[in-house]
Amino acid sequence: MVPSAPFPDQARTLGALLRAPYRKLAERLYAGLAAGGFPEIRPAHSAVFRHIAPEGSRLTDLAEQAELTKQSMAYLVGYLEEHGYVSLHPDPNDGRAKQVRLTRRGQAFIAALLKASAAVEDGLAAALGATKLKQLRDLLEQADAALADDQLG
Amino acid sequence: MVPSAPFPDQARTLGALLRAPYRKLAERLYAGLAAGGFPEIRPAHSAVFRHIAPEGSRLTDLAEQAELTKQSMAYLVGYLEEHGYVSLHPDPNDGRAKQVRLTRRGQAFIAALLKASAAVEDGLAAALGATKLKQLRDLLEQADAALADDQLG
Repeated sequence: MVPSAPFPDQARTLGALLRAPYRKLAERLYAGLAAGGFPEIRPAHSAVFRHIAPEGSRLTDLAEQAELTKQSMAYLVGYLEEHGYVSLHPDPNDGRAKQVRLTRRGQAFIAALLKASAAVEDGLAAALGATKLKQLRDLLEQADAALADDQLG
Repeated sequence: MVPSAPFPDQARTLGALLRAPYRKLAERLYAGLAAGGFPEIRPAHSAVFRHIAPEGSRLTDLAEQAELTKQSMAYLVGYLEEHGYVSLHPDPNDGRAKQVRLTRRGQAFIAALLKASAAVEDGLAAALGATKLKQLRDLLEQADAALADDQLG
């Protein structure tokens, strides 16, 4: 029962295989963005940017979507507000609730992230070949659909 | 510059495509493990299990490997100690430092996780076909290697 090595990375589980390139991709993107004028943003902040709606999102909804506690999300949002990426407003539908909106700087960050991501994918297409990268994307979508299926064994 | 939708998931960046099946896989595994006798473990705790060495690891090393603050790692380790998954000892090389070791229960959890992961992969192989799952694994390793390469454009 004693594993001979720490688990999932060495065991090459599918989870470890998905996670490794994700982490490397994120490190590349955030290092590039730090050098490109957004030094305050860490990968952890993507929990906000990934889920925020164009018209703004409630703090509680962001926490739920990111599967974070309200406190953790409030901490991330507070940091981003302090650095000018989001602004906080009373929720138009519920004055006691807070709505989080992207500032122009937050929008600029998202645009830069998408651009940086496209650049890394171009590099990957050159390294692996465009066909393989397309195959990888297709297979990831198929695996995702299968994993969403309640019938999966 | 204003995005018409929240960013990476809708934009189908490679990062979003890698992340989506990873999250679904983790949810399946941890739901199954909760039902199977390990209800205290959350995906966040994988930051400990993923990096802990068979002979034990120093708390500071675990924090560094998981890219967490020492405080965050101490919180995760404290929770796991309380629930019997790890034990804390003075580091044999540095009496002031703490070494974290898996208990038998921690080892049993890792064995159960590897088994559950293999079961989900069998389900995926049945759903997609074994050839496609093998292709996906190969392409993920190739992408990971390319992303680790400093020469990537």
